[in-house]
Amino acid sequence: MGLLGYAFMGRAHAHALLTLAHMTGPPAIGPRLVSVAGRDESRRTAFAERFGFERQAAGWQEVVADPGVEMVENLLPNHLHAEPTIAAARAGKHVLCEKPLALDAEEARVMLAAATEAGVVHMCAFNYRFVPAVRRARELLEAGDLGEIHHFRGVYRQSWGADPERAGVWRFDAAQAGGGALGDLASHVIDLSRYLVGEIESVAAQVATFVPGRTVDDAAAAAVAFAGGAIGTIEATRFATGDLNRFTWEINGSKGSLAFDLERMNELVVNGERTLVTPDGWWPPGHVLGWEHTFVFELRRFLDTMAGRGTVAPHGATFEDGVRANEVCDAILLSAREGRHVSLA
Amino acid sequence: MGLLGYAFMGRAHAHALLTLAHMTGPPAIGPRLVSVAGRDESRRTAFAERFGFERQAAGWQEVVADPGVEMVENLLPNHLHAEPTIAAARAGKHVLCEKPLALDAEEARVMLAAATEAGVVHMCAFNYRFVPAVRRARELLEAGDLGEIHHFRGVYRQSWGADPERAGVWRFDAAQAGGGALGDLASHVIDLSRYLVGEIESVAAQVATFVPGRTVDDAAAAAVAFAGGAIGTIEATRFATGDLNRFTWEINGSKGSLAFDLERMNELVVNGERTLVTPDGWWPPGHVLGWEHTFVFELRRFLDTMAGRGTVAPHGATFEDGVRANEVCDAILLSAREGRHVSLA
Amino acid sequence: MGLLGYAFMGRAHAHALLTLAHMTGPPAIGPRLVSVAGRDESRRTAFAERFGFERQAAGWQEVVADPGVEMVENLLPNHLHAEPTIAAARAGKHVLCEKPLALDAEEARVMLAAATEAGVVHMCAFNYRFVPAVRRARELLEAGDLGEIHHFRGVYRQSWGADPERAGVWRFDAAQAGGGALGDLASHVIDLSRYLVGEIESVAAQVATFVPGRTVDDAAAAAVAFAGGAIGTIEATRFATGDLNRFTWEINGSKGSLAFDLERMNELVVNGERTLVTPDGWWPPGHVLGWEHTFVFELRRFLDTMAGRGTVAPHGATFEDGVRANEVCDAILLSAREGRHVSLA
Amino acid sequence: MGLLGYAFMGRAHAHALLTLAHMTGPPAIGPRLVSVAGRDESRRTAFAERFGFERQAAGWQEVVADPGVEMVENLLPNHLHAEPTIAAARAGKHVLCEKPLALDAEEARVMLAAATEAGVVHMCAFNYRFVPAVRRARELLEAGDLGEIHHFRGVYRQSWGADPERAGVWRFDAAQAGGGALGDLASHVIDLSRYLVGEIESVAAQVATFVPGRTVDDAAAAAVAFAGGAIGTIEATRFATGDLNRFTWEINGSKGSLAFDLERMNELVVNGERTLVTPDGWWPPGHVLGWEHTFVFELRRFLDTMAGRGTVAPHGATFEDGVRANEVCDAILLSAREGRHVSLA
Repeated sequence: MGLLGYAFMGRAHAHALLTLAHMTGPPAIGPRLVSVAGRDESRRTAFAERFGFERQAAGWQEVVADPGVEMVENLLPNHLHAEPTIAAARAGKHVLCEKPLALDAEEARVMLAAATEAGVVHMCAFNYRFVPAVRRARELLEAGDLGEIHHFRGVYRQSWGADPERAGVWRFDAAQAGGGALGDLASHVIDLSRYLVGEIESVAAQVATFVPGRTVDDAAAAAVAFAGGAIGTIEATRFATGDLNRFTWEINGSKGSLAFDLERMNELVVNGERTLVTPDGWWPPGHVLGWEHTFVFELRRFLDTMAGRGTVAPHGATFEDGVRANEVCDAILLSAREGRHVSLA
Repeated sequence: MGLLGYAFMGRAHAHALLTLAHMTGPPAIGPRLVSVAGRDESRRTAFAERFGFERQAAGWQEVVADPGVEMVENLLPNHLHAEPTIAAARAGKHVLCEKPLALDAEEARVMLAAATEAGVVHMCAFNYRFVPAVRRARELLEAGDLGEIHHFRGVYRQSWGADPERAGVWRFDAAQAGGGALGDLASHVIDLSRYLVGEIESVAAQVATFVPGRTVDDAAAAAVAFAGGAIGTIEATRFATGDLNRFTWEINGSKGSLAFDLERMNELVVNGERTLVTPDGWWPPGHVLGWEHTFVFELRRFLDTMAGRGTVAPHGATFEDGVRANEVCDAILLSAREGRHVSLA
Repeated sequence: MGLLGYAFMGRAHAHALLTLAHMTGPPAIGPRLVSVAGRDESRRTAFAERFGFERQAAGWQEVVADPGVEMVENLLPNHLHAEPTIAAARAGKHVLCEKPLALDAEEARVMLAAATEAGVVHMCAFNYRFVPAVRRARELLEAGDLGEIHHFRGVYRQSWGADPERAGVWRFDAAQAGGGALGDLASHVIDLSRYLVGEIESVAAQVATFVPGRTVDDAAAAAVAFAGGAIGTIEATRFATGDLNRFTWEINGSKGSLAFDLERMNELVVNGERTLVTPDGWWPPGHVLGWEHTFVFELRRFLDTMAGRGTVAPHGATFEDGVRANEVCDAILLSAREGRHVSLA
Repeated sequence: MGLLGYAFMGRAHAHALLTLAHMTGPPAIGPRLVSVAGRDESRRTAFAERFGFERQAAGWQEVVADPGVEMVENLLPNHLHAEPTIAAARAGKHVLCEKPLALDAEEARVMLAAATEAGVVHMCAFNYRFVPAVRRARELLEAGDLGEIHHFRGVYRQSWGADPERAGVWRFDAAQAGGGALGDLASHVIDLSRYLVGEIESVAAQVATFVPGRTVDDAAAAAVAFAGGAIGTIEATRFATGDLNRFTWEINGSKGSLAFDLERMNELVVNGERTLVTPDGWWPPGHVLGWEHTFVFELRRFLDTMAGRGTVAPHGATFEDGVRANEVCDAILLSAREGRHVSLA
């Protein structure tokens, strides 16, 4: 594995790679932590030593060119998703890229095309598909236990957008981030809505930037219609005072309802009943997992796919899913800007 | 008092009238239960005897013409809101009308004009303004405790829309009901959003009818923008399987957040803390009230206004508030039909 | 009806009497509010006028002697439960007495004997038996849906015991109150545990008085064993900071579990699922009731029994149930004092 | 490190050892996974390979004698806690032993004496002290934010005791397990009550075995009094149908209250407010941890103590804490057997 980025996401991925071998059964392939790239030499070195990388690289180009690297994880800021990922795919590396896949759908489609042409395994790291309770929800929906789906409502609430100490981060700069709460948070809501309910057909949205001078949105709210007939809402904000990382969603079907809260990610409320959902073969029932475990399951899926055991889809998100999420984000922005509903073909 | 209607709403109002005298302190005026109108003689008689009405009337005209009646409560189906209410106002009676005020905003404006011209007290019975926890929320908002408001999200979930036994009720017929979940439920959400956050400036909506043959909506979802800068969502549905009467709303401000659930109407969540809110002078703190008590407080406000003690607004909804709710409902329908945002001047 | 007492409980009972006629269907008997007794003339007069009593009495003796009174409700402080109630029963009046029935079990047994000898209807006002969710719990238990019962844990939490403004109330004086949290709150827990699970066989308790100078307990906690084989805990306190009136109980059976919280009295959690329980024929499902409604159902049961329709037991508590609750309270005190388990034959 | 046992607890500890180096900052010492002992060769080999142990041992004696092992973790069934731990301490190894420390307090005291005489670091693995929310509770209590403590109520609910498939496990055999729910679950409750509130002075208990033929308790409930003046309840059961691993506790102080639920272990309810508590330097606020992380923090504390950085106490439990927990368990059994309160000097 070669990692691009050693910050928050770098730690999450590296930790998952070190965990999956002993916690999810022997994988068919690796993982070997071969190389990590990053600009700051001292931070990169500390990271590489801590997690046991074999070597370091000053830039992503070096990792992409490294013959010892079979798979590249792109954990860089959003504006650095496309170029390194495309280069890696063209170099025949399997590619995992953090979400949102690209700055916009057009760029995302180029990435998908590159990965498809190269015939490499590709994954867009929508890790919440790998929450055990989310997987259980999908199983219930596939089994028809919920009946015909009428509603989806998903809200991703964070509150740090108002924190003056976080004012200068790259996530508030459109050139580096593409979008704000939309790309960062709503993309998760969009992806899970598609994973659970199906394709979105039309969006009608309001978007707001509360802090003057910011070039990205602080919050977005959309009324959405799904191809299957359901309607609902998708919302994301960095101004939900008091909520740190609260991604809630609800589904109403003709035969039942589901509800989920990421801050209580081991619980799935099924027809009003709170059930604890923890994975088999990990700890005994009732012993809860944490946020980081989504990465373990995600990377396990990736490695298994590399080894010819199954595919990324449908439970993992491919670059195609990444393109779709970018398309819906673009549609939400367009809807708000032009004051009209935007259809997604 | 003269009541038009003896069904569910009739019982709620009559019970409140009998309760307010001994539970909220001696009112300046009455109430005397003078007359009740309704088509079915035996049901009307049973109702009149049960609640102690002095006389009965076969039709609303009789009540409106009754010199012993000073105030008329119109609790009839929606298509019978305008004519009797206007007639009562013109006959100099004070008028209370159930929500939604009218079948559409145009009709509502005529009602408002009639009441204003007649100089009578008028109230649109958005009773949830009188939930003690809602009043507390308003106080906190007025005191600035929440700071600048960024978000409102309100969802009214019921589930009986799918019940085949309820198939024939007037609420599914556009001619009698005007709208479906929109007029019946979303109107409550709209009114409280206005009461708590302020005027709605723009709506972008999706509306759905899930059951073939129905002429009203089964559900509506809107992304909304408020004049004060907040954005959010307003949703109502009769297809939230498992939820009987669950009206939830949340507000995020720069200094704090509020949350409410009508099924737990004695609670207000203030900055994550669940607080019990019960009214002074009723029972000791911690002894909870029920849904019906909103009518007691609402009618007490009406009677006090008749007696020259205070006004219906701002804590009660006037016909002007009724007009505004109808306007937003109309805008939601129009937005969904024409696929565009609709502005409210 | 003749009422002894016009304070908090007086208002709750009088309001219920005025409500039951029009809300629970025409009763076979009355109720007529004939007379109310109380020491303070101006407060008594205000009360009598507000609720429409036909006449007033300076002392309980007058009510007991009143030939127009068929039923006496004793709502006086605990040390005035026995004498007036016994006198009323001997005068042939049906008697309802607030809980705890007496200052101790011995006194309670005298009251039971008097009522039994007189052949009058008797009820000890454990009103929480009449919470619809509690009744539903009983039905599920009787139907065997919970299987064999293994556990009951009930805690009644209030917090006003630490309030210096409430320092002088009669409830802190052993001579007037008998017990503290034990008689006032734990008696409710004991009664519901008996109603739902069955007789208590043994108690092992700790009792505490936190405020120097008080002659009653501030809190009590007991490990209990039931005749049916279940074990559990019963606890009551006036020092649960933050909780106003929170009476929670849980039951674990071999086939399922139940949970209840009086502050959310319209909800019963059945096997982890939150269900709304509201009574038939009142409001439509989902429209919640308040604390006061327990008195409506309780008094309706009493009146029906007077009219020969059914009996107080098993859903209402008789003086026999009152005796049992006093016995368990006595046993808890004795267990704490002597440092040993106390058996209840 | 040398591990005795490769089952559930073995995995939890080995995983924690592999995690702590890269997730909690470079430790001063190791950890090196040197040796693991266990009876079943094929399971032991699989375990050793999975987690990267340098060598294996057929019996605990070999690990204790291994000069390459500095620290021994005893994760064997309860009846095998004393002998190997004492032998390890006498061989100069630092010792960590799973809870309950011993089959009874007498045995536990011998273990404590051995570890003290040998001068080795000793820890009883009450891992819930290392839940971040529990640590936060302790900080609030130490800071006096809760005022004088009046109540503790702790219940550990599991449900697998009724599962016929689990009938033969060693945990139901007194010879191997010592106690049932008492030693396995109540010991956790006792330890946290001591960590948060202080020493227990007196217990009055009921104990039950619901399944004929079992030689251990299935459930225990105790009314307890603390040296500091608080009273409360401690309960543990394997018959709480529907609850998998639900350890809840509440504390009421004169200035505030706390509540916790292990199934929502990232939350601490402070004065009614749900707060998310996650550790600094791990993931950003709002990204929750799982059950297994308690072991990471616990073992980090152990290693730091070995390296001379701080001590096990007060945040970790020593063998002295293990002795105390065994003493309270013994007192609960004795109280139930003899029908009297048992004092703890």
